[in-house]
Amino acid sequence: MIQKIVRVCMLFSSLCISNFSFSQSTTDSVVIRSIYNKELLHGQTYENLRYLCKQIGPRLSGSTGAEKAVNWTFDLMKKFAFDTVFLQPCMVPHWERGEKEVAHLFSDGKKVGPIAICALGGSVATPNKGITADVIEVQNFDELKTLGRENIQGKIVLFNRAFDATRINTFEAYGGAVNQRGRGAIEAAKYGALAVLVRSMTNIIDNNPHTGAMRYADTITKIPACAVSTAGAQEISKLIKSGKRVSIYLKMTCKWLPDILSYNVVGEIRGSEFPDEIIDIGGHLDAWDLGEGAHDDGAGCMQSIEVLWLFKQLAIKPKRTLRAVMFMNEENGMKGGLKYAELAKQNGEKHIAAMESDEGGFLPLGFGMKAAGDTLQKFMSWKKLFEPYHIYHFTDDGGGVDIGPLEEQGTTLISFIPDSQRYFDVHHAASDIFENVNKRELELGAAAMTSLIYLISQYGL
Amino acid sequence: MIQKIVRVCMLFSSLCISNFSFSQSTTDSVVIRSIYNKELLHGQTYENLRYLCKQIGPRLSGSTGAEKAVNWTFDLMKKFAFDTVFLQPCMVPHWERGEKEVAHLFSDGKKVGPIAICALGGSVATPNKGITADVIEVQNFDELKTLGRENIQGKIVLFNRAFDATRINTFEAYGGAVNQRGRGAIEAAKYGALAVLVRSMTNIIDNNPHTGAMRYADTITKIPACAVSTAGAQEISKLIKSGKRVSIYLKMTCKWLPDILSYNVVGEIRGSEFPDEIIDIGGHLDAWDLGEGAHDDGAGCMQSIEVLWLFKQLAIKPKRTLRAVMFMNEENGMKGGLKYAELAKQNGEKHIAAMESDEGGFLPLGFGMKAAGDTLQKFMSWKKLFEPYHIYHFTDDGGGVDIGPLEEQGTTLISFIPDSQRYFDVHHAASDIFENVNKRELELGAAAMTSLIYLISQYGL
Repeated sequence: MIQKIVRVCMLFSSLCISNFSFSQSTTDSVVIRSIYNKELLHGQTYENLRYLCKQIGPRLSGSTGAEKAVNWTFDLMKKFAFDTVFLQPCMVPHWERGEKEVAHLFSDGKKVGPIAICALGGSVATPNKGITADVIEVQNFDELKTLGRENIQGKIVLFNRAFDATRINTFEAYGGAVNQRGRGAIEAAKYGALAVLVRSMTNIIDNNPHTGAMRYADTITKIPACAVSTAGAQEISKLIKSGKRVSIYLKMTCKWLPDILSYNVVGEIRGSEFPDEIIDIGGHLDAWDLGEGAHDDGAGCMQSIEVLWLFKQLAIKPKRTLRAVMFMNEENGMKGGLKYAELAKQNGEKHIAAMESDEGGFLPLGFGMKAAGDTLQKFMSWKKLFEPYHIYHFTDDGGGVDIGPLEEQGTTLISFIPDSQRYFDVHHAASDIFENVNKRELELGAAAMTSLIYLISQYGL
Repeated sequence: MIQKIVRVCMLFSSLCISNFSFSQSTTDSVVIRSIYNKELLHGQTYENLRYLCKQIGPRLSGSTGAEKAVNWTFDLMKKFAFDTVFLQPCMVPHWERGEKEVAHLFSDGKKVGPIAICALGGSVATPNKGITADVIEVQNFDELKTLGRENIQGKIVLFNRAFDATRINTFEAYGGAVNQRGRGAIEAAKYGALAVLVRSMTNIIDNNPHTGAMRYADTITKIPACAVSTAGAQEISKLIKSGKRVSIYLKMTCKWLPDILSYNVVGEIRGSEFPDEIIDIGGHLDAWDLGEGAHDDGAGCMQSIEVLWLFKQLAIKPKRTLRAVMFMNEENGMKGGLKYAELAKQNGEKHIAAMESDEGGFLPLGFGMKAAGDTLQKFMSWKKLFEPYHIYHFTDDGGGVDIGPLEEQGTTLISFIPDSQRYFDVHHAASDIFENVNKRELELGAAAMTSLIYLISQYGL
């Protein structure tokens, strides 16, 4: 009886993986093994990332670092002899941090000491003489409403809602906290606050402030906004809870400059059978200015270039066209992603799939594909090819900031999913440096990405 | 047709997970969620590990550190009010490193500079004046045979076979290289070598030498054996390949002392229904002397204690008896593991399962259970309960150095399997310190271990 059931189940399994025969599967296993071997023995990802981090470093849109990164990745893909390498001009916003920010904490008027802050990206400066004001602490925007203008006007608001540590995927914890950073200045200014401090977006308690984008509204007063380290936020909170009058002196000299010309950088290998079907693999080249943009998103950029490099090294001719895309300006404007989709439409290109790697260069766990029906079934049928590499996490949801605009053109969006536990330890902070990237984790990610791109390039979606 | 197949498949599935009804599964999901929440919000593992690393530190068998660790873990489990906490005396070997080792590299007689080495655990010292000799490089024992006594006598042998980077599980790479460390001194001494240098057991290229146990044979001359950093091994190899005569000056003052009394430390919570069925969860308390034994194996010890702590905190009464076992002397003698099994047999105890956590405090990927038939089927049926926590890797092979001796008593052996990519970066080196442990990874491991132990304690095996 069991034998019969097993046979029926096997039949059922084979129905599930139609279009994917045993011999194909064996060939694919061999190709994927060769991809991993090449990358783990002779991969370029790690040394390329070292160069990007150590020789170029911070590269916020509009900075000289961003310009150098554009030139260097262009030259690198030329050196790797991809079929075509080209730039896509786009205008990007240009914000600068200015001098290192200063903040001092006072308890009942007595100086406690300096406190670690950094301006949020896009913030206005304080007046030249700085701002000194009392601090009130809130966890969310509802509390602002409850406190009202009479308690907020003339004060500095500390948004101190922590990450929810029970979320296994730390991106969900980030999603639950990041409105404080994005909209905090707007919401606090409605009640007359002079500035906002936002608890850094991380699970760990340390002295690193984590920057990131914030917004203003046209009709609301623009007040300075900065991140405070989690340890600093806890210190302020503790003083307030102990009944002290807590005040802070803040000085920030950040500024907006006129929009400036920058570029996406694209390298392409033409498909041998379906050259008009394009598969994108991308990360963003811009990075916040405090660290070296190692995990965010030097890793994703170098892995994307590596995908094409591995095809060339292994002499795998993709049936469909592959493009490594270095998107510009993901962090504070998304102008590169928008421009890419605009040009795709304008040029009548057919982008069948786009994969984004923008969750750090950590251990690969899997992939997400925003698809249904046959496409999703095909994707899921490939899962077993990845099990020898301990990659099991295949989900039906994919996307990314830079590839998102392609969706309306019918492009299937794919997320590369590395482990998320350590990402927010370094995200947008001075600790996002090359030394915090592990060579093998980075390479395993590049090999996994290349393997999935290989399957899509062979079989379509 | 498909409908019918689906129904048959579901029947088949339900046969697979007999003894595990839907409502049980729901209850278990809730319990496991509560275990994760408790650990991620209020876990003690990380702070306990900080104490073990920073207040006690290195704790090789026979050292004062080991003695302190015994006393502290005993007190900690008492403080946590486990039902019983007791010591199991056992005699352990006692080897000491002595003064920091000295090594100088010479090329054609000219001093190149110092080179990073450390004595392998168990090595004899060099003579007081040190050893200076020419170096020859080999990759394996066969090469020694080919070279013969005429090329080896009076020389220092460098064993320089690297990890196989294509192995996804780095423990397999370790397995493929570690005989150089374990038997290198025996094999080289057969041909008259004066000493051996062994390339450190790691994938990364850096200046940290990694120690670890080595052996002698009674009938073969005992020659000094040390590890050289991977960067150092490459430097020596490069000089030799360039045609230089390479020699090295080595000085090591390590020594053997008489065996000494030490202890396993055991904390127990009695089972409510089947108290005679014992489930062990353990790590080893001893650790090499260069670092703080953070990943190896402070992490496993603190996680094992945490399992019982979580049961108490959540007021889960295990049906079967749980024991957290701090094994002594895993690193250079295994005396604690042997003593534990000996006492289990002597006392007529029934150890139904033993789980070992000795692969570092990294991201949990899964578990291995050395079982077959119904037991393995039950284990595999639990897998889906772990998927929300991104734990997918369930294998039919489990074990561990310390729990291994229990196998002949019919105990089912279970490995806790964390990600292996970063383990050998720090293994047995000065870099195995608390700062290199990530809080969330450590906690996720403790929660995963507790969840599986909960299922075994409820349903048996």
